[in-house]
Amino acid sequence: MSRPLKLDPDRLLPAEERTRSIARELYREVAGLPIVSPHGHTDPTWFSTNENWSNAAELLLAPDHYLYRMLYSQGIALADLGVPDKNGVPAHDPRKAWRILAENIHLFRGTPSSMWLSHVFGEVFGFDVALDASTADLYYDRINEQLASDAFKPRALFERFNIDFLATTEGPQDDLSPHHAIQASGWNGRVVTTYRPDAVIDVEHEQFGDAMRVFAEKTGEDVYSWDGYLAAHRKRRAEFRAAGATATDHGHVTARTANLTHDEAERLFRTILSDRWTPQDAELFRAQMLTEMAAMSVEDGMVMQIHPGSFRNHNGGLFASHGRDKGADIPLRTDYVAALKPLLDRFGTSTELSVILFTLDESSYSRELAPLAGHYPCLKLGPSWWFHDSPEGMRRFREMTTETAGFYNTVGFNDDTRAFLSIPARHDVARRIDCGFLARLVAEGRMLDWEAAELAYDLTNGLVRKAYKLDQPAPAPAPVAAAA
Amino acid sequence: MSRPLKLDPDRLLPAEERTRSIARELYREVAGLPIVSPHGHTDPTWFSTNENWSNAAELLLAPDHYLYRMLYSQGIALADLGVPDKNGVPAHDPRKAWRILAENIHLFRGTPSSMWLSHVFGEVFGFDVALDASTADLYYDRINEQLASDAFKPRALFERFNIDFLATTEGPQDDLSPHHAIQASGWNGRVVTTYRPDAVIDVEHEQFGDAMRVFAEKTGEDVYSWDGYLAAHRKRRAEFRAAGATATDHGHVTARTANLTHDEAERLFRTILSDRWTPQDAELFRAQMLTEMAAMSVEDGMVMQIHPGSFRNHNGGLFASHGRDKGADIPLRTDYVAALKPLLDRFGTSTELSVILFTLDESSYSRELAPLAGHYPCLKLGPSWWFHDSPEGMRRFREMTTETAGFYNTVGFNDDTRAFLSIPARHDVARRIDCGFLARLVAEGRMLDWEAAELAYDLTNGLVRKAYKLDQPAPAPAPVAAAA
Amino acid sequence: MSRPLKLDPDRLLPAEERTRSIARELYREVAGLPIVSPHGHTDPTWFSTNENWSNAAELLLAPDHYLYRMLYSQGIALADLGVPDKNGVPAHDPRKAWRILAENIHLFRGTPSSMWLSHVFGEVFGFDVALDASTADLYYDRINEQLASDAFKPRALFERFNIDFLATTEGPQDDLSPHHAIQASGWNGRVVTTYRPDAVIDVEHEQFGDAMRVFAEKTGEDVYSWDGYLAAHRKRRAEFRAAGATATDHGHVTARTANLTHDEAERLFRTILSDRWTPQDAELFRAQMLTEMAAMSVEDGMVMQIHPGSFRNHNGGLFASHGRDKGADIPLRTDYVAALKPLLDRFGTSTELSVILFTLDESSYSRELAPLAGHYPCLKLGPSWWFHDSPEGMRRFREMTTETAGFYNTVGFNDDTRAFLSIPARHDVARRIDCGFLARLVAEGRMLDWEAAELAYDLTNGLVRKAYKLDQPAPAPAPVAAAA
Repeated sequence: MSRPLKLDPDRLLPAEERTRSIARELYREVAGLPIVSPHGHTDPTWFSTNENWSNAAELLLAPDHYLYRMLYSQGIALADLGVPDKNGVPAHDPRKAWRILAENIHLFRGTPSSMWLSHVFGEVFGFDVALDASTADLYYDRINEQLASDAFKPRALFERFNIDFLATTEGPQDDLSPHHAIQASGWNGRVVTTYRPDAVIDVEHEQFGDAMRVFAEKTGEDVYSWDGYLAAHRKRRAEFRAAGATATDHGHVTARTANLTHDEAERLFRTILSDRWTPQDAELFRAQMLTEMAAMSVEDGMVMQIHPGSFRNHNGGLFASHGRDKGADIPLRTDYVAALKPLLDRFGTSTELSVILFTLDESSYSRELAPLAGHYPCLKLGPSWWFHDSPEGMRRFREMTTETAGFYNTVGFNDDTRAFLSIPARHDVARRIDCGFLARLVAEGRMLDWEAAELAYDLTNGLVRKAYKLDQPAPAPAPVAAAA
Repeated sequence: MSRPLKLDPDRLLPAEERTRSIARELYREVAGLPIVSPHGHTDPTWFSTNENWSNAAELLLAPDHYLYRMLYSQGIALADLGVPDKNGVPAHDPRKAWRILAENIHLFRGTPSSMWLSHVFGEVFGFDVALDASTADLYYDRINEQLASDAFKPRALFERFNIDFLATTEGPQDDLSPHHAIQASGWNGRVVTTYRPDAVIDVEHEQFGDAMRVFAEKTGEDVYSWDGYLAAHRKRRAEFRAAGATATDHGHVTARTANLTHDEAERLFRTILSDRWTPQDAELFRAQMLTEMAAMSVEDGMVMQIHPGSFRNHNGGLFASHGRDKGADIPLRTDYVAALKPLLDRFGTSTELSVILFTLDESSYSRELAPLAGHYPCLKLGPSWWFHDSPEGMRRFREMTTETAGFYNTVGFNDDTRAFLSIPARHDVARRIDCGFLARLVAEGRMLDWEAAELAYDLTNGLVRKAYKLDQPAPAPAPVAAAA
Repeated sequence: MSRPLKLDPDRLLPAEERTRSIARELYREVAGLPIVSPHGHTDPTWFSTNENWSNAAELLLAPDHYLYRMLYSQGIALADLGVPDKNGVPAHDPRKAWRILAENIHLFRGTPSSMWLSHVFGEVFGFDVALDASTADLYYDRINEQLASDAFKPRALFERFNIDFLATTEGPQDDLSPHHAIQASGWNGRVVTTYRPDAVIDVEHEQFGDAMRVFAEKTGEDVYSWDGYLAAHRKRRAEFRAAGATATDHGHVTARTANLTHDEAERLFRTILSDRWTPQDAELFRAQMLTEMAAMSVEDGMVMQIHPGSFRNHNGGLFASHGRDKGADIPLRTDYVAALKPLLDRFGTSTELSVILFTLDESSYSRELAPLAGHYPCLKLGPSWWFHDSPEGMRRFREMTTETAGFYNTVGFNDDTRAFLSIPARHDVARRIDCGFLARLVAEGRMLDWEAAELAYDLTNGLVRKAYKLDQPAPAPAPVAAAA
């Protein structure tokens, strides 16, 4: 006995009728706009090789930490879901993994995953019955069948999804050849990289040593001297720029910045490379490097994204068995006011620099982030992020930042995902929530309808293009063609 | 000139008409479900002796810190309300105390006390005029008259309130004879105890010395040696289990846990028993004991409740004159992420352990608690608590936890009260607010009606029974019969 | 092509029709009540000299940090707006400054500035076209023309605005002669001062040395001895009282208080006056002075206002070029529970003392401030402040404080502004939002209509008059006549 799957065309719009009808009109004008995705974690080889994906569980379940963390929290073993551990992908039956998801789909009620999955199932795969235990096999087979078709190859979906710009994330230790291959292929999808140097900046990162070795090889610089290390960053940044990057990304534990002298920084760097560093040294070095990265951004024009506030790998037992990125990162209380001051004292009045701030600590929205972004020319606010990439999270973001920072110090939506098939769903949620928020302002006489319509466009396409400099000419040596 | 008292049948449901009609239907199905009250502070002797209560002021006003703290905040002396001080109940006229409440009833506008009192007056005592200065005596007399009747004896009200399970709270130093008497009485009301060992764990508690002496007497263990102390806990836990307890409760200042070696813990315990302990020692010992309690819970299956974050007895002058629990406890900023890590590193992946977390710091809902409970198998979220046991507090709890933790990592409602007559009112508020929240999800196309109906039941009865293991067979030596 | 400016008569009321109609009725009864403004920063010489203001930009733009901080955040130079720097008002064209505002008016969409400006333009200046690039000159000319008229002199507007009480803010180092001139003038507008001693208390304030010198001159006391310093405060407080002040105001970085012995305080004061003080000394001295000010308030009856939690002059570059108060103050996480305990341990049970607490950290509303104010007789909550003086900010304030502190531990609205023309707009926003909040409580069956009507009055006029003691007889030596 299966139940129908029907997407409510008015989903996520406010229930109140007058507000809803305003929201509906706003949404109608932006629903079909191209997707601009300036921050995410999709795999560029999907688009360079354009090979079909394998199966439903491996594409939709095993890589999606939103899904498997919820199942894990209810006592389900990650191995049964095919989530890789330290020895790689465990022996498992993907069909059975899919059935586990189906049998436990009720756990996701009220979560954004529920909205995203319904969208993927209904819009991308064309299901008209809901996923549950009775339809698990039907789903599994039909999804796999479609995934094997030409229409479901990565580039075909990219085009079907109307994606105008898609940024991936690579480190200085990573190979950009997939991006070069995309550029060389003649395909006109704009898929570019983002410079994320955490692995060569954070000495507490378990990959630091290896990443530094590759960093040395790839740049030919003496990365174990302070000046050589900085030169290596400059070299890689230029290569990333040439491969289309417009931004850098920094996922530090805190937002702390520092402004050391060259000599102090050099001494600290030597300590970091020794065995004698303390956690305080590690933190101070990350802090200093944010300021160094800002200095390079002033030179090369790359937009900085700062994503602080996650206690990585909190579950000690799970980290030992499975390693990082297994849904065990937990947000931390995060300070921005004292933390950012050294960087801002150096570059705060610059109109060359652009820094986009994110948070996992919603209490900082109205207290710190909106006041900072509503004052400093170089600061903008990234959208509600990660755990807060959700209807209530987005609503709180707008309610707690708009009155102080306005809309024009924000930068549109980031999907921040490696779940490629959910990208349209995620952008759709953001568009609906923003239109609902704007509609409430109109319904309460706080804004006029034509202002809301302008804003709906800006929140969807205008601000993100400007903030990430998508329409600025690429730098001289860059071979990448600007997309429409 | 008295005003009518009329309870709006749609009270607390969302105002928007379509949402309200969905909420109304959801509520209709759960309004009459039995009350499950797994965490509270009623007096078990009420149910063992089944004697009538004395008068309105002593039953409804003097023990209710929500009421007398508000009156006190406006300059009214606690003595005039009959609130006990260090010398016991002060000389006072209970009728006059009641009149003071009546004359100041406007102070409670917009507070949950206002909703609870109206429910108690209207539903329990059958008043159809509102309480104010003009009706104070009428109320006082009519309440006293009813309290003297058989229909208002504790067991009769327990049955009339349709209470299926009621937990009280006792310490290792307390006598369980009222519970034994209830069990032996043949009355089939399920009233059980909860193991709350704070007084023998917190050396900063002013009753620590006395509690330890009684702990030694009651257990016959050498509670002044570390191993004897742990053995004494095990013995009392077993006795609590036998008296029907399914849970322990821990009201620490912080959520800090520790994971010391046996030798470290033993040394710390000796320090605690000496005169040389510092506040840091006291804190570390409480931290270690949470982990020890978790270890015992893995053994005996008792659910742990952790209620941190209250600065007890903040008002120095009032504490000197009146002692503890006089409405002067103030919430503190509370960290869970670092604090719980030692315990979680030891038991975090266990599916034997179940820990229910509470908070007085709402900023931790979306930042820490929902992410932790949405990941760790052993963690669940208790409901919005104490100051946040209120319509807006409950709404914020759902809005800030559901998207990350889902509904199924929460445990239903706790009334946490010693105001027995208000128990139905409190559960009714929770049911209405939850139905309103679910109705909004339905009205916004985020959930289907049948899903909301399932959840309304689960939030009322299903989750609490499971989380507190109410339907698991009692342990072998337990003589208590399972209630309907 | 200009667009019409039309103020929605229902603006800021809830969109839902039933709730809106309740709100509309509540609002109708309070919309025309007199304005009571017990905390603000208007210039008393406006009312003593009653001279016309100069021009639109200098009156409405250059002094309004809400406006120029937003423009600055988008890269506009403060010099172009006529905002003074360290050398005074920069060479600029006020008409061009005004045009910049007009061209960028869209930046304010969704901010309270947008609501305030529309009110000022529509209600005060009678415009029926909106401000934008096309109407900038029309606005500039018409505003200037009106500003030159008798009807726009300060006293005329004061009367037209129906202001019943207006407090300004002066320091112990300031001259009260404008206030004396107002009192002597026979004009019956009630404009009084407030005692704000920060400049002689905060040794980290760049004006401390100068302010102390003037403090010594004005009082004739030996302000460089601890007892003389306290005597000087007493003397100035008496003079402020005589000039009509009913309150003091304290804008410290934190809410920390201390309760040192006389000898400890004296030693600390000597350190503060030396060159050897540390930031910790400065903080402890501020803390001690809050308690000293509380002691004096117990003596003289002045209400204390504590406004903590702002990191002043965060933008180092801007502070160097422009000095303080340039929109670069950023809120800080603020503790009240530990911070206020020393003061409360000394005066917490006093019914003589009245302390009004403000915050820029909304996470403290439900966690700390409402529990404190809902218990201590001497504490009341000031309204949502500064960045939170906004529709969403006011709504959150009520939602997060009312259930614990009630309405009667709050004190009505503060406009806290030096933008005189926006005072009616700001009070109007507060009245609308409060009526909307009350209407929701009525619509949800949580309050009766007549209770809401009483509260609407109390939140507008009743509570502020009581909290700031506006209707108590002035002290014996005070020559000021009580206003209607």
